[in-house]
Amino acid sequence: MAYVYDFTQGNKDQKDLLGGKGANLAEMTNLGLPVPPGFTISTDACRAFLAAGTEPDGLEEEVDAQLRALEARMGRRLGDAADPLLVSVRSGAKFSMPGMMETVLNVGLNDESVVGLATRNGDERFATDSYRRLLQMFGSTVLGVDSEAFGDRLDELKAARGVASDAELTAEDLRGLVEDFKVIIREHTGADFPQDPREQLRRAIRSVFESWNTPRAALYRRQERIPDDLGTAVNVQAMVFGNRGETSGSGVCFTRDPATGEPGVYGDYLPNAQGEDVVAGIRNTIPLAELARLDRASYDSLLAIMEQLERHYLDMCDIEFTIEEGRLWMLQTRVGKRTAEAAVRIACEMVAEDYIDRDDALLRVSGHQLIALMFPRFAPDPDRHPVATGMNASPGAAVGRAVLDTETAVAWAERGEAVILVRKETNPDDLAGMLAAQGVLTSRGGKTSHAAVVARGMGRTCVCGAEAIEIDLVNRRFQVRGGPVVEEGDMISIDGTTGEVFLGAVPVSDPDVVRRLEGEEVDDPVAVSVARLLGHADGIRRLGVRANADTPEDARRARRFGAEGIGLCRTEHMFLGERRHLIERLIVADDEAERQEALEKLEPLQRQDFGEILEAMDGLPVTVRLIDPPLHEFLPDLTDLEVRVALEDERHEEDRRDHVLLEHVRRLHEHNPMLGLRGVRLGIVIPGLFHMQARAIASAMADRIEAGGDPRPEIMVPLVVHERELTLVRGELEKVIGEVSADRGLDLHIPIGTMIELPRAALLADRIAATADFFSFGTNDLTQTVWGFSRDDVEAAFLPAYRDRGVFPVSPFESIDVDGVGKLVEIGSRLGRETKPGLHVGVCGEHGGDPESIRFFAEAGIDYVSCSPFRVPVARWEAARAVLARD
Amino acid sequence: MAYVYDFTQGNKDQKDLLGGKGANLAEMTNLGLPVPPGFTISTDACRAFLAAGTEPDGLEEEVDAQLRALEARMGRRLGDAADPLLVSVRSGAKFSMPGMMETVLNVGLNDESVVGLATRNGDERFATDSYRRLLQMFGSTVLGVDSEAFGDRLDELKAARGVASDAELTAEDLRGLVEDFKVIIREHTGADFPQDPREQLRRAIRSVFESWNTPRAALYRRQERIPDDLGTAVNVQAMVFGNRGETSGSGVCFTRDPATGEPGVYGDYLPNAQGEDVVAGIRNTIPLAELARLDRASYDSLLAIMEQLERHYLDMCDIEFTIEEGRLWMLQTRVGKRTAEAAVRIACEMVAEDYIDRDDALLRVSGHQLIALMFPRFAPDPDRHPVATGMNASPGAAVGRAVLDTETAVAWAERGEAVILVRKETNPDDLAGMLAAQGVLTSRGGKTSHAAVVARGMGRTCVCGAEAIEIDLVNRRFQVRGGPVVEEGDMISIDGTTGEVFLGAVPVSDPDVVRRLEGEEVDDPVAVSVARLLGHADGIRRLGVRANADTPEDARRARRFGAEGIGLCRTEHMFLGERRHLIERLIVADDEAERQEALEKLEPLQRQDFGEILEAMDGLPVTVRLIDPPLHEFLPDLTDLEVRVALEDERHEEDRRDHVLLEHVRRLHEHNPMLGLRGVRLGIVIPGLFHMQARAIASAMADRIEAGGDPRPEIMVPLVVHERELTLVRGELEKVIGEVSADRGLDLHIPIGTMIELPRAALLADRIAATADFFSFGTNDLTQTVWGFSRDDVEAAFLPAYRDRGVFPVSPFESIDVDGVGKLVEIGSRLGRETKPGLHVGVCGEHGGDPESIRFFAEAGIDYVSCSPFRVPVARWEAARAVLARD
Repeated sequence: MAYVYDFTQGNKDQKDLLGGKGANLAEMTNLGLPVPPGFTISTDACRAFLAAGTEPDGLEEEVDAQLRALEARMGRRLGDAADPLLVSVRSGAKFSMPGMMETVLNVGLNDESVVGLATRNGDERFATDSYRRLLQMFGSTVLGVDSEAFGDRLDELKAARGVASDAELTAEDLRGLVEDFKVIIREHTGADFPQDPREQLRRAIRSVFESWNTPRAALYRRQERIPDDLGTAVNVQAMVFGNRGETSGSGVCFTRDPATGEPGVYGDYLPNAQGEDVVAGIRNTIPLAELARLDRASYDSLLAIMEQLERHYLDMCDIEFTIEEGRLWMLQTRVGKRTAEAAVRIACEMVAEDYIDRDDALLRVSGHQLIALMFPRFAPDPDRHPVATGMNASPGAAVGRAVLDTETAVAWAERGEAVILVRKETNPDDLAGMLAAQGVLTSRGGKTSHAAVVARGMGRTCVCGAEAIEIDLVNRRFQVRGGPVVEEGDMISIDGTTGEVFLGAVPVSDPDVVRRLEGEEVDDPVAVSVARLLGHADGIRRLGVRANADTPEDARRARRFGAEGIGLCRTEHMFLGERRHLIERLIVADDEAERQEALEKLEPLQRQDFGEILEAMDGLPVTVRLIDPPLHEFLPDLTDLEVRVALEDERHEEDRRDHVLLEHVRRLHEHNPMLGLRGVRLGIVIPGLFHMQARAIASAMADRIEAGGDPRPEIMVPLVVHERELTLVRGELEKVIGEVSADRGLDLHIPIGTMIELPRAALLADRIAATADFFSFGTNDLTQTVWGFSRDDVEAAFLPAYRDRGVFPVSPFESIDVDGVGKLVEIGSRLGRETKPGLHVGVCGEHGGDPESIRFFAEAGIDYVSCSPFRVPVARWEAARAVLARD
Repeated sequence: MAYVYDFTQGNKDQKDLLGGKGANLAEMTNLGLPVPPGFTISTDACRAFLAAGTEPDGLEEEVDAQLRALEARMGRRLGDAADPLLVSVRSGAKFSMPGMMETVLNVGLNDESVVGLATRNGDERFATDSYRRLLQMFGSTVLGVDSEAFGDRLDELKAARGVASDAELTAEDLRGLVEDFKVIIREHTGADFPQDPREQLRRAIRSVFESWNTPRAALYRRQERIPDDLGTAVNVQAMVFGNRGETSGSGVCFTRDPATGEPGVYGDYLPNAQGEDVVAGIRNTIPLAELARLDRASYDSLLAIMEQLERHYLDMCDIEFTIEEGRLWMLQTRVGKRTAEAAVRIACEMVAEDYIDRDDALLRVSGHQLIALMFPRFAPDPDRHPVATGMNASPGAAVGRAVLDTETAVAWAERGEAVILVRKETNPDDLAGMLAAQGVLTSRGGKTSHAAVVARGMGRTCVCGAEAIEIDLVNRRFQVRGGPVVEEGDMISIDGTTGEVFLGAVPVSDPDVVRRLEGEEVDDPVAVSVARLLGHADGIRRLGVRANADTPEDARRARRFGAEGIGLCRTEHMFLGERRHLIERLIVADDEAERQEALEKLEPLQRQDFGEILEAMDGLPVTVRLIDPPLHEFLPDLTDLEVRVALEDERHEEDRRDHVLLEHVRRLHEHNPMLGLRGVRLGIVIPGLFHMQARAIASAMADRIEAGGDPRPEIMVPLVVHERELTLVRGELEKVIGEVSADRGLDLHIPIGTMIELPRAALLADRIAATADFFSFGTNDLTQTVWGFSRDDVEAAFLPAYRDRGVFPVSPFESIDVDGVGKLVEIGSRLGRETKPGLHVGVCGEHGGDPESIRFFAEAGIDYVSCSPFRVPVARWEAARAVLARD
């Protein structure tokens, strides 16, 4: 087994073995580009080292052999006293982990070879400075000396000499510094700096291996979802120097503009500097174009190489180079990172240039990038500063008058005002206010708080947990701690992408992408490209895309965005205003007659709700979920009411109505409402509610048919956990539908299916499938029960600690937990289809709009996802990418 | 395929095919006993009929052939005008469903044959009455005429004749009644009573088939957990008549006393009556012994047959017989139902009599019967009447002074009073009171309410949901609606087996079985037999049995009952009194120093707790679960506190402490505490608590070792859902244990395992097993999350409706849901053992004490169950039965 590969032996596809940097150095070497020679120690060697705690057998011999070959090619020997070869030792993992792991330059210098280097180049200062840098880098990274010890000494020296920059120190100064650094190393480690160049190399390599497992590297990997067991490769390469005077320098460049995607050279150059200096930003760089003036030959070579690399990689490349005394060296290349706009523009222009085809273009723009392109945003302004910052809970830019409660939000919105709902936290009572508002700002709660979750679902901008904000409901205003007071009605602006809160109305730029996707004529090339690629995606994907929509407006918007139906129409969101009042009457009814009366008044209202939605989605399926939440959600909060009644009693102002209400609220109170009387359980305990809804759906369908439409409602029963629940409810629903059919003289066919949102339903889906016309996975509730986490409670209490300590990199409510929840989704759909081959299976949880989750659902053979209207284009996009990535 | 079997063709083991009655009639026929000849139409025929809605091909021909054979043997033909054969048509399913399905007697009578029957027997009244009975039975069961129509006409006639009993009606009267009944049938069905005897037979058979699916039969099956797809057999048998005068009669008898198990004849006899009359209880029966005086020959024959049947069945038999004009006929036998005491006595005496061996004896006494034998009970007294009745939530008999809150319960118990805690409902704050009390009585909540669940777990007697009780905390008393007022301190008695509540102290008889199992010398033969069989069971079972015990007293009791360790020691139950106060201080601490101080004060108290339990269980494993519930459970209820603070503010009596407390209670408030900051999540967010507990456990272990003991603590981490949680916590616990080891100069080995109580933990048990020394399934929480039911909320809200509508026959919290929760238990233990072969896997949910669940765990290859001390003998018992049942 070989552990070490010369740059001539590898290629760009061997990132697993050689890491990203090593693979690309090999690729450039084989393209004949001017790469300083060297070799790569593979990730296999790193893994073997980390497993055993010591270098694997044979590694040292291989490194020796490669080093001898390198020495032969360069005509110099490592540490040679007369003319030493110097090498760099750099980490290079499969996935870029910038700054996370170690680099040691100038390996091979010691007390003797530094003299040879100076003599050979006729530049003592350069040689001594190189040695000083080795001592400093080796001391801190390999030997573990606190790097401040070196920095402090350097600062002292500069102060003593009265100079500001390292460059102003003389060779003499640097010689003294070398001696000082050697003392620091001896004092801190109890041993001298190793003079043996082979030992320097061996220890530098080992140190790069070990840097894979530093806490900061491990934390970075968890955040970036990079597996812990990959290990890093190590690149040993002949040194070239950009700091050899004015004919030398280092730079970074891109083959197209990574911010806009515009074609043409783009980059920065720093004369008389090493690459590390460019990255560190010690001096200001100059635009790459100016290199043409300084060194035309090198500039022309670089441009030719950039074009060659782009044609070779068929993508925009990110390049690092060094010029040593007029000679150009390539030190790194890779496919460059870019903004969402640039990603679209580059991909589409490369299609036009025949570099790639449209499938490739789709693969190059992620769903997350599409999401970024779709959010409204504030026009940039460097002079604008936020007054407070919270969590970026639901992206977008929203502007409106601050309102402090739902009633005000609704009232002001009805008279045409744009409003931002500002609350300590939100609860289901705030739904109407959130719907009415442009955005939501809370002072408590995190990314999975009620406000955040609901706002994301609605596509409303949301900033939550802005803790500096103290709301004063009595005086109708809020105070920003250490900042201004904002009166209700003042204009504010919130940026859901950054979490920033601004005073006043910040101008919003409406994204062309969204306008184009909604069907407007827009010229913006990115918007046009996105629309074109999305059309291409529709031809590729096998996953259907529906929308979660509860109102005719949402349904129409979803349809414009390309939704192929409604996968989740939540009827509880319809119980606002008069409907809410009727639901309350239904709950507190004294007898069956009163209950019946409330139901009879609700039915025509619901019938109208459904009729409008069916009209908006004419010809497409509309899956209506029967009422799901516990009924007490429609009544006042227990604690609030207890306090109110206690105070009324205390003041002898007893209110009989409050007492009655309190009795009912107490009766319905649940310790864990998530696990209480909800969904199908309501349908079994209080059948009238489900019957009313079924009658309204069937009647609305009949209305639409008579009006010449093509209504396709489906009824979805929530929270089924046992096949008998569905059998019982289905029988009753069919009876109701049959009655309406007979009354209207129509044959109303309405498929009846169920949500699979509890573990038992997934585990026994084969039984449930026998009476279900379709399944729809409710992955929100499934996540809550599989993990035993309540979404409402989890964030504030322990999600931050869990992320910090690496239990998960991202909340399982944001991106589906493939291992646990995903396993149940697979079990559930497999079992369901065992009973009913071809059973139509959808997903209607929030995950339906998350790119990673969409990809998982596509691969798991789900028939469709349903997501918020705003996420419909993303789901279409990502579903196609899933097909392409697999093929 | 044959559908019909002559009685000579079957045997007692063919209950699947012939039903219980048919199989046993065949067995008796083949034993040469006097059984009226006949044949059985198999359950296959019934299933085929129910599937197709019509008689299967060939059935009619087979019935014809069997009927001809029967006619030939009896020398009479069905419906023969001169000397008719009459037959009975009776249902008979595999499992007895008394009174649920149909019977038709005297089939074969019509206007002509009734004359022949009268002539042949010289008894016109008997013949006419038989015809009247056929019309009545056939009319109501086969033709669906409301049976009251016949009953009313009969009553009118008796009134007109001025007689009280049917027997006083003359032949003339009965002739008139026959004509009236024929009119009723014609009026109700639009057709005449079928005169064709073959049609009578065919329709009677079909009617029995159909009676399998009546709603009441279906409901009965759901309640008794009888599968719906078995179908019933139909027995067609030559009629014999016990109502042919004083030399005739019918009776039922048992080969031993079914109440006590005492040997010797036992039964009832009714002269001049049919079997139906005995069951209906129209006239008073006489003891069987008196038959000896009436008809010595028949009596002697019966006794000989009883002995023969018992020897043949090797079990106590339940027999039905008829004597027709001095001739004895056997109509039914089966293994008889019996009380728990009788079951033990009969089984053990049959071992002594060499009928059966001890394995058989164990198989004949169920775990439920053992439970029934162990509960304390009230001495019987027919004059005692309950003042209220609730649900029999946790069996036993408890006597004490009524107390209305936990503080009073604890205070009075400490001064030596026996108390009964009477509450509207209980919550975790009442734990101390429940522990202090003899029993618990609530006016709200059902069998899975907090009171019921906790009381069962503790083995405390509990009656819950006694709705007639209205508690008046202000005046410290309760009112029984329509009954007396009970002042706090009055003696009351509650019967947890019947749900009855009595005034005063009812004498309790302490069950000998329990005293014997706890090691006392007791003579009672049943108690001695139970102890002996339990010893036998220990030699058979492979499932280990541990106890759930949180106190030294419980640990000692469990050990006396045979527990092989503690499988669940819940540390939160230890935080009472001073400990509770310290936990509260820990929660509301202003800074780390205060928090640390509270922890340091808690540690020695916890160390003592653990020391005493380890001493009680010396040499046996003690699995300590680290603190599990959300911390707010240790603080006052949010609503109560909000009301208190609001009232204080209103009265200008502000209490700073209450305000501070309220802030913390609000901070910790959770919408769904079940799914909140609990278990290992606490250990990660507030590590100090777990560290303190680990230190206390390790120190207690060291103390015990130094005292010469053999302590075997194990640490169990609750609510793990991701392997990383366990890795993190395990590392910290090992560090603490290492520190104590070093301090004490001992090598303390404490296995660290985890509960598997959330679906994800079971689905990914292979990963978790890598860092777990053992698993223990928490089937309570697993049931809550798999079903999405909260135990606290489920009962009142919808469990009754779910039982009524057949979703489940028994709450999944009482008996494990094998299909859903059981599936996850199997997945979890299989995956765990894939990673760690031989991984020790236990169950510590309440199901560990439920006989059906124990059997499932034994079959699923679980290593041990842990249950309340009181249930330990039951678990030992049922674990052995599981082995025997499978072998």
